[in-house]
Amino acid sequence: MSGKLYGLGLGPGDPDLITLKAFKILQAVPVIAWPAPDTGASFARSIATPHLPGGQTEIPIVVPMRTERFPARDVYDKASVEIAAELDAGRDVAVLCEGDPFFYGSFMYVFERLAERYDTEVVPGVSSMMAAASAAGRPLAARNDVLTVLPGPLGDQELTNRINTADAVAIIKIGRHFKRLRGLIESLNLLPHAIYVERVSLDAERLMPLADVPEDTAPYFSMILIYKGGEDWIHALPGSTA
Amino acid sequence: MSGKLYGLGLGPGDPDLITLKAFKILQAVPVIAWPAPDTGASFARSIATPHLPGGQTEIPIVVPMRTERFPARDVYDKASVEIAAELDAGRDVAVLCEGDPFFYGSFMYVFERLAERYDTEVVPGVSSMMAAASAAGRPLAARNDVLTVLPGPLGDQELTNRINTADAVAIIKIGRHFKRLRGLIESLNLLPHAIYVERVSLDAERLMPLADVPEDTAPYFSMILIYKGGEDWIHALPGSTA
Repeated sequence: MSGKLYGLGLGPGDPDLITLKAFKILQAVPVIAWPAPDTGASFARSIATPHLPGGQTEIPIVVPMRTERFPARDVYDKASVEIAAELDAGRDVAVLCEGDPFFYGSFMYVFERLAERYDTEVVPGVSSMMAAASAAGRPLAARNDVLTVLPGPLGDQELTNRINTADAVAIIKIGRHFKRLRGLIESLNLLPHAIYVERVSLDAERLMPLADVPEDTAPYFSMILIYKGGEDWIHALPGSTA
Repeated sequence: MSGKLYGLGLGPGDPDLITLKAFKILQAVPVIAWPAPDTGASFARSIATPHLPGGQTEIPIVVPMRTERFPARDVYDKASVEIAAELDAGRDVAVLCEGDPFFYGSFMYVFERLAERYDTEVVPGVSSMMAAASAAGRPLAARNDVLTVLPGPLGDQELTNRINTADAVAIIKIGRHFKRLRGLIESLNLLPHAIYVERVSLDAERLMPLADVPEDTAPYFSMILIYKGGEDWIHALPGSTA
């Protein structure tokens, strides 16, 4: 009998923000797989670390981060073969996912290769978008607000149209698009309404008005929240220099 | 010294989908407050029930559900006075929140009354939107998709414009708007792309193509997901009668 495949949401980074369900699965599975950049550690693996009993088989899924050309087909093909071999041998496999597995996550690339052949369960997690609003201390969306989630790589014109018509906006996948995005938000006169959040829920968390970010780049795990009408309290944020 | 106020996200319903952090706080706080409709049980309280050690002071926040006129100012004024009295006495208070406290949640009404006066922490939770995508077995949003979250009470013209321009849509707060929303989605030729999810992650969960829902109304805890281009797999859902 084949093993079971889990897509395991581990939340935004604080190991205490994983679910009881994910915790129990981490304690029980004989095999874990996790994405990692080709240089540096796996963020998902680091969230799981304090919860692992030790002795699991581990399958790294090393994804080159220098390019935006996704899917990195060969990487996921190879990882799926390795995962399938464990499942065929009757061992359960948990694929570790930062945040939520199905909210812009890379788990979909494993899922689309294996879910039809193996019993698969996706365990939702706390997304960094929710954690960022909690850290900012203001609801991301309320009442009849329209919330729009925008990937940073989108073009300027599309971003402009979307931002102009939304009540609340979360911009994800910022990275090397940071400078362009900040310029765009400034050109829309929304800089006073925007918050920058980096590595939310971790000790290294940074949260401040977007206008106050000194750098011109941002790490992969960062986000911009735009609260229309929110400039009054954004200037009062602890990180603000305004 | 005053107690601490927690806005405690408890996730979509399965008690195992609360975070370790929320679990620890539930085990420790002497006072809990929770929203409840004027008829029926509190959903947030029911999620917390298996995790409570017993003996807490409880503050029900009974909100009339028959009207959409929010905020129910008097209800939150009164609850905040009761919560403040506990905090003033040095006792920590956790306000129980289904899903995530700052994602269209009612916790904001307590937060805006008390957060400036008391040490306050919002603990993010798994939102029902993420759980619904996990249950549906397809990513809600991926790659450079634009995701739009729409409250059901919005007018037809606004909903039409928003749905037409989004890649993926989650419609929340459906309830008595269900029939109108389904008609609208059908008129946009998107019925084959839409999934209905009710009481996600609970034993009573129902998930099926929107086209197959026999009723003309929906409970408060339900959602419609629209996946453009998704009709191929929606018909293969277990709940489908197509």
